[in-house]
Amino acid sequence: MPITYRDAGVDIGAGDALVDRIKPLARQTRTDTVVDGIGGFAGLCALPADVPDPLLVSGTDGVGTKLKVAFATGRHDTVGQDLVAMCVNDIITTGARPLFFLDYFACGRLDVDVAESVIRGIADGCTLAGCALVGGETAELPSMYAEGEYDLAGFAVGVVSRQRVLGPQGVREDDELVAVASSGLHSNGYSLARRVLESEMQLTFGQTLPELGRTVGEELLVPTRIYARSVAQLGAALGTDLHALCHVTGGGVVGNLPRVLPPGTRAELRFDHERPPIFDVISRGGPVSEEEMQRTFNLGIGMVAVVAQGRGTAAVAALEAAGERAWTAGRIAKSPSNETPHVELL
Amino acid sequence: MPITYRDAGVDIGAGDALVDRIKPLARQTRTDTVVDGIGGFAGLCALPADVPDPLLVSGTDGVGTKLKVAFATGRHDTVGQDLVAMCVNDIITTGARPLFFLDYFACGRLDVDVAESVIRGIADGCTLAGCALVGGETAELPSMYAEGEYDLAGFAVGVVSRQRVLGPQGVREDDELVAVASSGLHSNGYSLARRVLESEMQLTFGQTLPELGRTVGEELLVPTRIYARSVAQLGAALGTDLHALCHVTGGGVVGNLPRVLPPGTRAELRFDHERPPIFDVISRGGPVSEEEMQRTFNLGIGMVAVVAQGRGTAAVAALEAAGERAWTAGRIAKSPSNETPHVELL
Repeated sequence: MPITYRDAGVDIGAGDALVDRIKPLARQTRTDTVVDGIGGFAGLCALPADVPDPLLVSGTDGVGTKLKVAFATGRHDTVGQDLVAMCVNDIITTGARPLFFLDYFACGRLDVDVAESVIRGIADGCTLAGCALVGGETAELPSMYAEGEYDLAGFAVGVVSRQRVLGPQGVREDDELVAVASSGLHSNGYSLARRVLESEMQLTFGQTLPELGRTVGEELLVPTRIYARSVAQLGAALGTDLHALCHVTGGGVVGNLPRVLPPGTRAELRFDHERPPIFDVISRGGPVSEEEMQRTFNLGIGMVAVVAQGRGTAAVAALEAAGERAWTAGRIAKSPSNETPHVELL
Repeated sequence: MPITYRDAGVDIGAGDALVDRIKPLARQTRTDTVVDGIGGFAGLCALPADVPDPLLVSGTDGVGTKLKVAFATGRHDTVGQDLVAMCVNDIITTGARPLFFLDYFACGRLDVDVAESVIRGIADGCTLAGCALVGGETAELPSMYAEGEYDLAGFAVGVVSRQRVLGPQGVREDDELVAVASSGLHSNGYSLARRVLESEMQLTFGQTLPELGRTVGEELLVPTRIYARSVAQLGAALGTDLHALCHVTGGGVVGNLPRVLPPGTRAELRFDHERPPIFDVISRGGPVSEEEMQRTFNLGIGMVAVVAQGRGTAAVAALEAAGERAWTAGRIAKSPSNETPHVELL
């Protein structure tokens, strides 16, 4: 009996069926810079005409073991937003406007319904971010992934004018720090979160925790906020008074904020804000030390904006008008030049 | 005893150590359009000044279960080139010049030496393709990957002038087809190849096959050719006489060549070329039917160029001057308009 590719565990028919289901999802994210959609060998996208001296800004990320919560709960429609958020929140820190996105979906055996659900979430995330889903790869890798599991990688490209790139070069002493609320864990620290909740506390995903007001699974699947539109509104309101943006991702605020600090400075960040309750559940349930919590989780701050002195209140107003919760949270201080730029939590 | 992220299986120290090892590898791929390297939240890249009305061309892909051969043989320095090849060979079919590349590396437990070896291969691939490695993500996902295993996704962006986009819109009746040799299996059909070689034929990766002149493992790890520079030379030699390019990837030449055929045409492709011996080994060893071989593997043709009538010989000369093996292999014929564009193998 001759052997076929299908015998070897790869179902090209399922892949084709999925492509047909993805097409309308991708179409829904189409922006006016897209030249060609999914289907050819590559995605084509023009540059917006209103960005002089354009630089391309790119980033890649995954969702990490937050995926494990999707596997366990059978809910696959939220991790796509996480994927887009993790990539897009990185590239917008340069001041870039997101242009397009591509995804990589890998599994052991392709379940077309699950994959469609995931990619629908990606398309929804792209819509929230204002970028077009121009391509993707669906890989069926027999025996590399456990039954019912998959991995995701995302790639985002945006554009910023060379004269308007945000970052440490624009940050100076007495700049104000503005914290933007996260929606919860976002997509970092899930291996630790799950270790505590599942192993130490012996909780199940279906269990409702009163302090959360929802089930553990629901809490763990709250999508990562996508800050693209809010940050665009912040940039429009503040102009050149917006100096830098920090995406609080793996490493927490102490690990990430230094990435936008120039030599000879430190960030004095008030850290007495009310945290989403999930962080206290994890901290007590481990227990996990405050230091470990700080360098693993965002602890309620998903993004930090560094703005010119006196502009903190205006920044908060712009972010709140865009639908975020935000607050002024400290300043940039001078540091001895032999000290590495760092964050001092107050 | 308080619990740490490391207890939960994520070693941030190993991640940081890897980043330090990657930096010089990425630096080696730097091109003059790169504005900022790895380290910030995102990679920055300018557009080349000599591409009027630029369109961005993007593609993503993985290496598939070719990775399993790397796991089994412990040789991790070649799959990086495969990753770059699979992405870059897609985007250059539009006529694009590769600009930059990002990679996603995911594993269960980070082995810094293995990861460095993989990423060194990626950097080498980027050098071959003439693009810069501007970013990447290394994800440690405890319990999602088996010990010693990892997955890879790549993402390539290039640029092409809107007036010079290659594709079906430029292809016409009597255009000539030029086949460009592959180096072997490239990165497609490995689940089937391994099923035949390992299960049906009971071969081990260390075994030397006389018809291959090397071990099974060596054959299966031959890197996918990166056609970026050769295709650029072809474009320079032929100008507007280069009409379309087809990357022969999953689905084989019968599945991919139709992607560059306009309605009302078919490709008449001579298919009597000498195939790399690995394909006969698989075909006999399965057995695998010729039809299944054709829609799973490249069977020795990694790229097909569609060029203006009378320009096939010049195209072959340009490709051979660039170091490829190439030959004229047929033409574009008129088809009844109610027929879907397809390939007729002669």
